[in-house]
Amino acid sequence: MSTREEDQFQVRKLEIFDKSKGFIEILQQLTVCNPLTDEEFDARFQEISSYGEDHVICVIEDNVSKKIVATGSVFLEKKFLRNCGKVGHIEDVVVDSCARGMKLGQKVIEFLTNHAKAMGCYKVILDCSVENKGFYEKCGFKQKEIQMAMYFN
Amino acid sequence: MSTREEDQFQVRKLEIFDKSKGFIEILQQLTVCNPLTDEEFDARFQEISSYGEDHVICVIEDNVSKKIVATGSVFLEKKFLRNCGKVGHIEDVVVDSCARGMKLGQKVIEFLTNHAKAMGCYKVILDCSVENKGFYEKCGFKQKEIQMAMYFN
Repeated sequence: MSTREEDQFQVRKLEIFDKSKGFIEILQQLTVCNPLTDEEFDARFQEISSYGEDHVICVIEDNVSKKIVATGSVFLEKKFLRNCGKVGHIEDVVVDSCARGMKLGQKVIEFLTNHAKAMGCYKVILDCSVENKGFYEKCGFKQKEIQMAMYFN
Repeated sequence: MSTREEDQFQVRKLEIFDKSKGFIEILQQLTVCNPLTDEEFDARFQEISSYGEDHVICVIEDNVSKKIVATGSVFLEKKFLRNCGKVGHIEDVVVDSCARGMKLGQKVIEFLTNHAKAMGCYKVILDCSVENKGFYEKCGFKQKEIQMAMYFN
């Protein structure tokens, strides 16, 4: 018995029940992400949802294990320049370390860039480490600038 | 008759009347920014204002010329990671070419980073050209990653 790859993986928006499907554990593979209570998760979920199409979180669910195996987000920034243009900012892209090599990362990026394009953005941008540059080039991105950061804590 | 520098420059949030004070002309020094009708400007102003403290545009007005001489924006991204952390994204920082050398850029960055910090962000980030790296280092930023971009038009 085998499941075809296109049937096994479901690419969709984050839903409120995804906390129980390992969504936070996936983020923990990216950076510091302590466990959240259901109340904390729900409150943040509602805050982000209130932005509607302006802040979308993509997840990939493995239909066999019923676990979230990849995620990424995009939010749309509204500008005055470029004739009141909009820019999509991609953040927090991560694929479960057990699910690499199946192009799930590319599927997440495709979902997010398609969303930004459909919403009328003139470009989509993201920051990544030098090691991940090749992956994003394969997805159609080009290096543009450098990222600067200031940490408060 | 002379005006002391701290009296000459007013650092504040963008107001709807700033279109008539040269706000768009300042953005044109940064990138493509065709003239906007009052209706287009007002509509985008209202859209951004609806985000409240989550999207703030800083301007510096020259109290003598009554013109906008610098601007920059920050919007707050809400995450699940870092214990439902928030990140400030700084965008579109520009100082009038006739008003350089008076530390107005630093004043804009200070206003935006203070806002992000006060709103509970754990960091503030921005993308810049390699040539502007030194300026942001003086403001307290450090280089972190690289920026990748995909243009739709």
